[in-house]
Amino acid sequence: MSSVGLDVSRADGPAKIRGAAQYAADIELPGMLFVKALRSAYPHAKILRVEASKAEKLPGVVAVLTRDDLKGKNAFFGPVVKDQPVLAIDRVRYAGEVIAAVAAEARDIAEEALDLIEVDYEPMPAVYDLLEAMKPEAPVLHVDRTKAQSFPAKSGFRLQDEGNVLSRYHVEDGDVAVGFGESDEIFEDVYTSPKIQHAHIEPHATVAYWEPSGKLVLYTSTQTPSSIRTQLAELLGLPQSMVRVIVPFVGGGYGAKTHPRLEPLAALIARKAHRPVQWVLTREEVFLTAHCQAAVVKIKTGVKRDGTIVARQVEAVYDIGAYALTSTNTGRNGGEVSGGPYRIKHQDLTTYCVYTNTPPTGPYRGFGVPQVCWAYESQMDDIARRLSIDPLELRLKNLVREGDPFVTGHNLVSVGISDCARRAAEAIGWQRGAEQAPRALSGKVRGKGMAVMIKTTMTPSNSSALVRLNTDGSAVLLTSSVEIGQGTLTSLAQIVAEELGLSVEHVSVTFPDTDVTPFDQSTSSSRTVFTMGGAARQAAHQIRQQLLEIGARVLEANVEDLQLINGFLEVKGVPDKRRSIPQLFQARYGAAVGNMVGTFDNQTSGGLDPTTGKGKGSVFYFLSACAAEVEVDTDTGKITVQQVITAVDAGKAINPRLCHMQNEGSMIMSLGSSLFEEMVFDNGQPINSTFLEYMPPSMEDHPKKFQSLLVETPHPEGPYGAKGVGEAGLGPIEPAIGNALANALNGIRVKDLPLRPDRVLAAVQSAKEHGV
Amino acid sequence: MSSVGLDVSRADGPAKIRGAAQYAADIELPGMLFVKALRSAYPHAKILRVEASKAEKLPGVVAVLTRDDLKGKNAFFGPVVKDQPVLAIDRVRYAGEVIAAVAAEARDIAEEALDLIEVDYEPMPAVYDLLEAMKPEAPVLHVDRTKAQSFPAKSGFRLQDEGNVLSRYHVEDGDVAVGFGESDEIFEDVYTSPKIQHAHIEPHATVAYWEPSGKLVLYTSTQTPSSIRTQLAELLGLPQSMVRVIVPFVGGGYGAKTHPRLEPLAALIARKAHRPVQWVLTREEVFLTAHCQAAVVKIKTGVKRDGTIVARQVEAVYDIGAYALTSTNTGRNGGEVSGGPYRIKHQDLTTYCVYTNTPPTGPYRGFGVPQVCWAYESQMDDIARRLSIDPLELRLKNLVREGDPFVTGHNLVSVGISDCARRAAEAIGWQRGAEQAPRALSGKVRGKGMAVMIKTTMTPSNSSALVRLNTDGSAVLLTSSVEIGQGTLTSLAQIVAEELGLSVEHVSVTFPDTDVTPFDQSTSSSRTVFTMGGAARQAAHQIRQQLLEIGARVLEANVEDLQLINGFLEVKGVPDKRRSIPQLFQARYGAAVGNMVGTFDNQTSGGLDPTTGKGKGSVFYFLSACAAEVEVDTDTGKITVQQVITAVDAGKAINPRLCHMQNEGSMIMSLGSSLFEEMVFDNGQPINSTFLEYMPPSMEDHPKKFQSLLVETPHPEGPYGAKGVGEAGLGPIEPAIGNALANALNGIRVKDLPLRPDRVLAAVQSAKEHGV
Repeated sequence: MSSVGLDVSRADGPAKIRGAAQYAADIELPGMLFVKALRSAYPHAKILRVEASKAEKLPGVVAVLTRDDLKGKNAFFGPVVKDQPVLAIDRVRYAGEVIAAVAAEARDIAEEALDLIEVDYEPMPAVYDLLEAMKPEAPVLHVDRTKAQSFPAKSGFRLQDEGNVLSRYHVEDGDVAVGFGESDEIFEDVYTSPKIQHAHIEPHATVAYWEPSGKLVLYTSTQTPSSIRTQLAELLGLPQSMVRVIVPFVGGGYGAKTHPRLEPLAALIARKAHRPVQWVLTREEVFLTAHCQAAVVKIKTGVKRDGTIVARQVEAVYDIGAYALTSTNTGRNGGEVSGGPYRIKHQDLTTYCVYTNTPPTGPYRGFGVPQVCWAYESQMDDIARRLSIDPLELRLKNLVREGDPFVTGHNLVSVGISDCARRAAEAIGWQRGAEQAPRALSGKVRGKGMAVMIKTTMTPSNSSALVRLNTDGSAVLLTSSVEIGQGTLTSLAQIVAEELGLSVEHVSVTFPDTDVTPFDQSTSSSRTVFTMGGAARQAAHQIRQQLLEIGARVLEANVEDLQLINGFLEVKGVPDKRRSIPQLFQARYGAAVGNMVGTFDNQTSGGLDPTTGKGKGSVFYFLSACAAEVEVDTDTGKITVQQVITAVDAGKAINPRLCHMQNEGSMIMSLGSSLFEEMVFDNGQPINSTFLEYMPPSMEDHPKKFQSLLVETPHPEGPYGAKGVGEAGLGPIEPAIGNALANALNGIRVKDLPLRPDRVLAAVQSAKEHGV
Repeated sequence: MSSVGLDVSRADGPAKIRGAAQYAADIELPGMLFVKALRSAYPHAKILRVEASKAEKLPGVVAVLTRDDLKGKNAFFGPVVKDQPVLAIDRVRYAGEVIAAVAAEARDIAEEALDLIEVDYEPMPAVYDLLEAMKPEAPVLHVDRTKAQSFPAKSGFRLQDEGNVLSRYHVEDGDVAVGFGESDEIFEDVYTSPKIQHAHIEPHATVAYWEPSGKLVLYTSTQTPSSIRTQLAELLGLPQSMVRVIVPFVGGGYGAKTHPRLEPLAALIARKAHRPVQWVLTREEVFLTAHCQAAVVKIKTGVKRDGTIVARQVEAVYDIGAYALTSTNTGRNGGEVSGGPYRIKHQDLTTYCVYTNTPPTGPYRGFGVPQVCWAYESQMDDIARRLSIDPLELRLKNLVREGDPFVTGHNLVSVGISDCARRAAEAIGWQRGAEQAPRALSGKVRGKGMAVMIKTTMTPSNSSALVRLNTDGSAVLLTSSVEIGQGTLTSLAQIVAEELGLSVEHVSVTFPDTDVTPFDQSTSSSRTVFTMGGAARQAAHQIRQQLLEIGARVLEANVEDLQLINGFLEVKGVPDKRRSIPQLFQARYGAAVGNMVGTFDNQTSGGLDPTTGKGKGSVFYFLSACAAEVEVDTDTGKITVQQVITAVDAGKAINPRLCHMQNEGSMIMSLGSSLFEEMVFDNGQPINSTFLEYMPPSMEDHPKKFQSLLVETPHPEGPYGAKGVGEAGLGPIEPAIGNALANALNGIRVKDLPLRPDRVLAAVQSAKEHGV
C-alpha cells in the first residue's frame, strides 16, 4: 500500500508548530462581545429572586441573560434526557451552576457586571456521595422526571422513575448462584474511582452570532458538531439548516467537548445582544462544566482452583453529577464489559447512574470502562496470588478468543487480546511466576503488574463522508470529524489517498462546518477511523469505480485489469498504457471541468435490548494490555512509575506513528489518574479547580520506559482492517500500576484511586502489621 | 407548484438591508496588510529598471513585489491564452498596468511607498484604435504568440498567428454573393460601440493568505471561484486542493469579476509577506482592470421588396485591450448571432478580436451581442423605412420560429421571440404603420422604436450541485454559484424546495468555497438557473427517489402513488397515510441520524467547430424584445427616454419578481450605454475614470414608464422549463432607443454610441439639411 500503514506526517503539524492554528477563542468578529457567567454559590438551592437591572445599566454591558428571558420558551436540553436548563430557572443543583450571563464590550466589564446581579437563594439539603444519593431519604435533584427524552430504542439502559437513580443497565449470562456454588474460591471486593478532570489544554470556548436571515452561526470547540446542530435546532425551534456549527482546531477533548455545553447560552445571549459573542471558560469554570464520573464498583468472582473463572457478579454505581448528558450510555458501556475480557459462564452485571449535587459529568476517555477495569483487573491479581498462579498465565487461561460469544450475546471478532498481553509482558521482561516473590518492605521496593481491558464503541452510529476529486487529480474529503489532536486530518487523508491511488499530499480534509460537511454522530468513542474512515473509503471507492469505467473505455481494457497508482490509471503490467486523472476528466467531458463525487452514509448496526441488556454491543471491541513497573518509597508512600508499556490491537494501523502517539497520550493521562488526580469538594464546593492544585502529571513523573506496542488483528469491517485506538490503551493502566504496587507490597492492595502517598503508606503499614 | 413560480422574498434581503452582508473588503484577518499597486505611466513601453529598495526600507512596509520576484517562475496567466503577467515584466502594454505592489501595515504607508519605487521606461509607439491596430504597420503588443493555451476543442474561434489580431470567428450559410444578387435592395452600414464600464458598485477586492500547510486561501469578489482555483493552482504549481477560494457577497459583477484579476498578485505578495493581505481597488483602478470591448460592426443586408431578408454579411471587430482573458469567446459569441434572430438564407458572419494599448477588457453583460444587435437592429429600421413596412411587421415576418435551423446549424427550441416583440409593442401602444409618420423638427419631438435580440449561453459548460437533506427535513444546497445580486440564493432554493416538497425557508444555499462546494464553471452567461438549477434539481431528485423508496416500504405503497408535499411523504389522495421526513430517517436507520445526499454533475453538450463555425452554439437561446419611446430636444440634442419596455422569454420564471428585477437592471444599465457612457482616453491615458466624469445614469434619467414583461416558452431541458434571463433584456435596448431617435428624426440615424447630444444635434442638423 502506498499511503495506509505509513507514518505520514501530521497534516496539522505546520499550523500548530508555527502558532497559526486557529482555535475557537482565536475567532474575532467585528462588534464581538465577551460573555461572563454568574454562578451559584450553593450546591442546592431554590432561586427566589434574580435581579439584573443594575448590571444592565453598567456602561459597556449590552445584554444580561437571566431566567426571565426563558419564560415561556423551550429552556431545557440534553442529548438523552432533557434535564438541563440553559441557565438555572427555579433552582440550582450544583455550586457553580450558571444563573445569569452578561455580554459586554470587554471581559472586565462583564466580570464587574456579575457583581451587580442580585440573587436570593433558599438553600436546600444536598447530596454529594453517590451511595448516599441512592438512599430513599436523600434529597432528590430532579423531581419532575417526565421531560422529553430521545434515545435509540436499542440503547440498552432503562430510565428509572424516581429518586436520584437516572438509569440502570443489566445483563446476565448463565446463573451466578449456580456459578458461585461450583466455585472453589470466592472473591468479593469494592473498588472506587474519584471524579477526575479531562484536563484538555484548550478550555471550552464558543463564538456565536445570528445572521440577519435568522441563521445561528457557532464557532465552537466541540467534538460533536452534528449533535450541537441537532440539539440547538430543537432547543431554538429552528430547522437544522438555520443552525451552522463550525469547528476550528480543538485543543483536546477526551469527551468533555461532546454535546452542548456553552452553546445554548451563547446562542441566546447573542440573540438578545444582537451582536456576536465570545464565551471562553477559565480553568476553574472548566472544572464546573465537565468531568469523569466517580464510581463505586462491587465485584464478586468465583473461581476454580485451576484458575478458571466460573462466576462474576458486578454492581457498579456511577456518580453523574447534577445533569444527565450521556451518562446513561456511560453506565451501560461500563456495565456490559464490567466482567472483563474473559470467558465466564455465569455473569450478572448491573450498573446505575446516580445524580448528585456536583457539576455535570459526561463522557471521559474510556467511557465508564476504566472504573470497572480498575476493579476486575485488580481483583484478578488477588485471585492469581491466592491461587499461586502467575497473573499473566491466569489471564491467558481465561481471556476471550476469536469467535467467542460475549456476555451480551454477540460473537467477538478481531480478538488480539492474548497477543497484547504477551507482548506487553515480554516488553517489560515479565518472568512468569517470579514476579510474585515476597519483598522486604523497607526503603524503596519495586513491583511489576499487568492488566488487560475490553471496551466497546458507540453502536449503532452514523458517519457520512463525501469525497470530491478535482480535475487535476487532487481530492477533498468533506467530513464533520473533528481534529482534536488525534490526527484525523492525516489518517482520513491516507485512506482516501490509498483508495484513489493518489499521493496523500493531494488529499485535503475539511474542518467541520455543518452547513457543508455531512453528518457525523461524534468524534468520540474512538470511532473515527473505523466508522468515518469506512465511510471515506466507500465514498472514494465510488469515484474509483467512475475512474475505472472511463479508463476501461479509453484504454479499451477490462476494469479488472486496471489499477490506480501515483495519480495514474494504468493497465496492470503495461505501465505505458495509462491515463492521468486530468486526461480521464478530459475523456469524460472534453474539457477539464466538473468533479467526481462519491458519498457514503455509514450506518453501523447493533445496539442492546434495554430489558435483557443483550444484543450486538459493539461493531468492534478495543482490546489492550498494559504492563507496569513501580518503585515505592515505603517511608513516604511515593510511587515512581519506572515503566509503562501498553499493547493495543489496532486491527490495522492506518498511521502507526499516530497510533503510538494516541497510546502515549493514554498512558500519561492514566498515569495521572492512577497516582494524583481527583477533584476534591468540601460540602459541594470544589476546592482544587486549578492545574496547580489538581496536579496532572508533569514531565518529572514521566516513566523512564514508556512504550507503545501495536498488535494488528484485521477487523473484517474496518477500512483496511482498522479499528479505533484512541481509548484502547487507557483502561488497563490504572490496574497495571495498582497491581505493580500490590506486587511490591506483597499483595497488600490499595482499592481506591488515586494511589496517593497517604493511601500507600497506610497499605505499607497494613502489610507490615499483617506481616506480609 | 409550491415554490417554483412564486415571488419568494430574497434570501439575501435581511443581511443587505441591515448592512450585515459581508463583502470581500469586509474580511479582516489578524495581521492583515494592505496592498497598493504602482501602475505604468505609459501606454506602451519597455521597462528598463525597477528599483524597490527604498520602498522596502520605509517603516511599515512588509513586502514589495516586483518582476524580480517572478524570475524563473511561471508568471503568466489567462483562461484561454496565457498572455497576462502577474505584473509587468519586460514591458507595459497599457497606461495603468501594474508594475509593482507594496504590502504595508496601513494603506497610506503602502501608498507612500509606491512613490519610492523607481522605474525607468523606454516609451514605445502605441496603438489605441481597433482598426489601426489591424494594419500591418501597427505596433504589435504580443510578439511572442506561442504561450500555452487552454480552451476546449469546440470553442469555435481560431487563434491568429501574428499582428494584433488575436482570434477570428467565421460562419456562413448559403452563399451571400448569390443572395445579394437576388436582393431588391442592399443596405450597407457601419455601427460603433465604445468602451464602457460595468459600473458594479463593489470594486474588485481580494484577501489572500497562506496557511502554514502551504495552502492558499482567497476571499475574493469573483463570479468564477472554480476558475480562480484552477488558474491559481496552475500558475503556482499547486494541486487544486491547496487553493481555496471563498466568495462572500458580491456587489455586482456583470462579467468584470470573471477570471483572475487581483488574485494572482495578491497570492504572491501574501506569500512574500508571510501575512494576510487585502487588496481593494479604487474606482479609478477598476476602470483600469476591466471594461466592455469597443466594437466596429460593418453590416450589409440584401432584402426583397416584400421585406424578406435574403442575405446578410457582417464583419465585426472587437477591441479587447491589452490582454485576452476570454475575449476570444466574446468575439465568437457576437459573431454567431451577428445576423440577428432572423431566418436568412444567405449569411456570412465574421468577427475579429484585436489587441490595443488600452486596459484589458473581458466579459460584459451581453458578451459581445449588444454591439452587433446595435448594428442589425438599427439597420432593420432603416430597411423598414426604405420599404415602407412597419418595423414590427418587418421583424415578425423574418423572425426565427420554433424548430428553425440557426446559422450555426442547430435547430432552435423554446422560441418565444415573436411573442416578446408583440407584447413589448402592445405595452408601448405601438400603432402599426403610424409610428413612421414624419415629424416637424423643432422644439421637442417624440419617437418610438423597437428591437429584438438573440444571444447564446456558454456551451458546453459544467455545473455541479450537491444537496443534503437533514434529519429534520431541512436541506442544504452546496453550490459554487455566486450571489452577485441576481438572486441565486433564492431561486436555487426554490428549485430544491420544489423537488423535495419542502418549504423554501427550510432550504439554504451555500456561498462558494472551493474546498467544499462543487465545481461550477462560472456565474455568468446567465447560465445559473438553467445549468446549476438543473444540477440542483437532479441532485434533489436523487434524494426524492431515496425518500420515495423508503416511503414505499414503510407505507406499503407503490412509488408512483406517493407524493412529497409540505415536508411529508403521503399516499396521493390519502393524506393521513403519510410520514414526516424525520420519520423516514427513523425508518431507515432506527434513529434520526445521517443525511441523504444527492449530487449531480451537469455537463451541457455542444460547441462550435473552429473551422466551420458550425455546431450546437448554445443549450438555450436568450430571446427578447424592447420597445422605447424618446423625446428629443432638437435645440440641445438631449434625449429623454419616456418609456422602456422589455419582454423576455424566461422559459419558466422560477421567481417572477427576481426575473423582473433582472430585466429592470438590464434596462437601466443599457439606458446608460445608450445615452451617456463611454470610456474616454487621451493618447492611451484614461481621462474619465470616476463615476462623476463617466456618468452612469442617475435616478433623474429614469424613464417614466419602465416595464418588464415575461414570456414563458418552456425549455425542455431547463429545470421546470426555465432559461436564463440575466442578460436577455440588455441587447435590444440600445437599438430600440436608437430607433426611437431615428423615428423622431424622420429616419436620420446616429450610428455611434452613446447617443450624445452633440451627435444628436448633428443628426438634427443633417435631417434639416436633407429636408426630412
